[in-house]
Amino acid sequence: MKRIAIDAMGGDNAPKAIVEGVNQAIEAFSDIEIQLYGDQTKINSYLIQSDRVAIIHTDEKIMSDDEPAKAVRRKKKASMVLAAKAVKEGKADAIISAGNTGALLAVGLFVVGRIKGVDRPGLLSTIPTVTGLGFDMLDLGANAENTAKHLHQYAILGSFYAKNVRGIANPRVGLLNNGTEETKGDPLRKATYELLTADNTISFVGNVEARELMSGVADVIVSDGFTGNAVLKSIEGTAISIMGQLKQIINSGGIKTKIGASLLKSSLYEMKKTLDYSSAGGAVLFGLKAPVVKSHGSSDVKAIFSTIKQVRTMLDTNVVGQLVEEFAKETQVND
Amino acid sequence: MKRIAIDAMGGDNAPKAIVEGVNQAIEAFSDIEIQLYGDQTKINSYLIQSDRVAIIHTDEKIMSDDEPAKAVRRKKKASMVLAAKAVKEGKADAIISAGNTGALLAVGLFVVGRIKGVDRPGLLSTIPTVTGLGFDMLDLGANAENTAKHLHQYAILGSFYAKNVRGIANPRVGLLNNGTEETKGDPLRKATYELLTADNTISFVGNVEARELMSGVADVIVSDGFTGNAVLKSIEGTAISIMGQLKQIINSGGIKTKIGASLLKSSLYEMKKTLDYSSAGGAVLFGLKAPVVKSHGSSDVKAIFSTIKQVRTMLDTNVVGQLVEEFAKETQVND
Repeated sequence: MKRIAIDAMGGDNAPKAIVEGVNQAIEAFSDIEIQLYGDQTKINSYLIQSDRVAIIHTDEKIMSDDEPAKAVRRKKKASMVLAAKAVKEGKADAIISAGNTGALLAVGLFVVGRIKGVDRPGLLSTIPTVTGLGFDMLDLGANAENTAKHLHQYAILGSFYAKNVRGIANPRVGLLNNGTEETKGDPLRKATYELLTADNTISFVGNVEARELMSGVADVIVSDGFTGNAVLKSIEGTAISIMGQLKQIINSGGIKTKIGASLLKSSLYEMKKTLDYSSAGGAVLFGLKAPVVKSHGSSDVKAIFSTIKQVRTMLDTNVVGQLVEEFAKETQVND
Repeated sequence: MKRIAIDAMGGDNAPKAIVEGVNQAIEAFSDIEIQLYGDQTKINSYLIQSDRVAIIHTDEKIMSDDEPAKAVRRKKKASMVLAAKAVKEGKADAIISAGNTGALLAVGLFVVGRIKGVDRPGLLSTIPTVTGLGFDMLDLGANAENTAKHLHQYAILGSFYAKNVRGIANPRVGLLNNGTEETKGDPLRKATYELLTADNTISFVGNVEARELMSGVADVIVSDGFTGNAVLKSIEGTAISIMGQLKQIINSGGIKTKIGASLLKSSLYEMKKTLDYSSAGGAVLFGLKAPVVKSHGSSDVKAIFSTIKQVRTMLDTNVVGQLVEEFAKETQVND
């Protein structure tokens, strides 16, 4: 049985969307148990009772605008903190929250803890592409600065994720750079290029430009946290603004436009679905001793369901356990 | 009379698109003279004769896949190199090329030369947004590494550009960062934040996330060249892939989809036009003693026309001359 601790109070639509997502997941997957941390009365008003769901009541919660480190230190009984402690104490196998990202990074690092040998866990998401394949990218902003060694570790982490969670047998790893030639980039990129080329356990396909990301040039994209964050937000911002503009054109158009749009409706809906971030689950703070997954702050029922499904796959494949072994080997070699 | 030197042989559609763009510009603007550098016979087969257009013949040209520094050193009579020399020798006031970007950066830096006091000229483009306003961003990749002082200079350069070329009275300057709070970012961002806050000659609006760029959060966005390059290419790649997907859906759809699309045609065309990069002109290597402008490699007639128009405005407002004075002041203060 896979035991997942969920912060019921995090996110714009909590606890309703969280609990209803749990209801769906409990119905769909017979091999999971859920612990819901938060306000018992509120949770109960949405929960379909099940012997595989437990509520751990607490009045305290971390707000989205709380200063992360301070909030984690002071609000010792916050739903997110209690959920992380359950993982640390072996009462749960993974944690999900749609709440304050910085706070979740903090409890991930300081309560759940790093895998031995992983220097700087990175934030990993599966980013959808119009081709429908998507790619895994990290670090998306857990760190503001990274070294070449960190980026090398991201290549290993990302490869394990793509293989186990997305079922890609031999994931192609690309290094995000300002050109495709081997000699491109700043000293960080050049040093990383050498490390990735020398590592035969990964399938390094070389430097990749941000322009090619959406055309499926690699399965795993490695980046420092600052650039990765900027790229992710650029992709999101551009997709949202174009889709929004399309909607506005249709709404403000005349009868001809409206008829045209209604005829195109199912096709446009297909495209929107392909680009839907939430169907791939949440962002994993990867490199920790257990799955710690951030669901988007605006997560709806479907997004929460997808994140639970994603965590279930991570537990099912024991991707974290495999990484513990992998980095234990690396640590021995380097000792 | 504004004298513009143009590399007639650079770009995928050279010399046809270049020369035809010149024909249009000569017709539209009575205050410009054009010098076309390249193959006289080929140029003449497209050129509408005018006493304001001169051809300077040369057989040599830099190819798009030439190694930039080497090509500039060896091909001393290449059309691009001769055009840059004309600027250096005072025979022309600006240079435009749709050819090899790296080579144009090299001739810009080493033939035209930097404005005294500008440490690292940056690549600036006006990036279109769905709102139609657009924003100016630099550095988009002239440099792989930058210091806070460089970024401060980009804020000044970008403000002068937005004011003079785009007519924005008091351009809002944003610092691209991984969060909007004052304390966000790596040491480079934190140091830049302090410099920008302390400079009363610019309207600094604080940190800006990449997600907000497309919603017009600032008129000028300052970034290091590595991140700026990644962000630009992410925006382009995402826009291209979504628009491409839309096209594919329409083409592969049934009769209902096709009728719908044909009814939406003018609206979709409007959107495509709003997002058209080429209408804002080319990318300026800004901080040099004269306008050095890179038109996109795939530039068509309209893009070349727009770039000539952009350079004409730069010369008309004497934005480079103003910057020479501005940085002379700064250099004195710092001496």
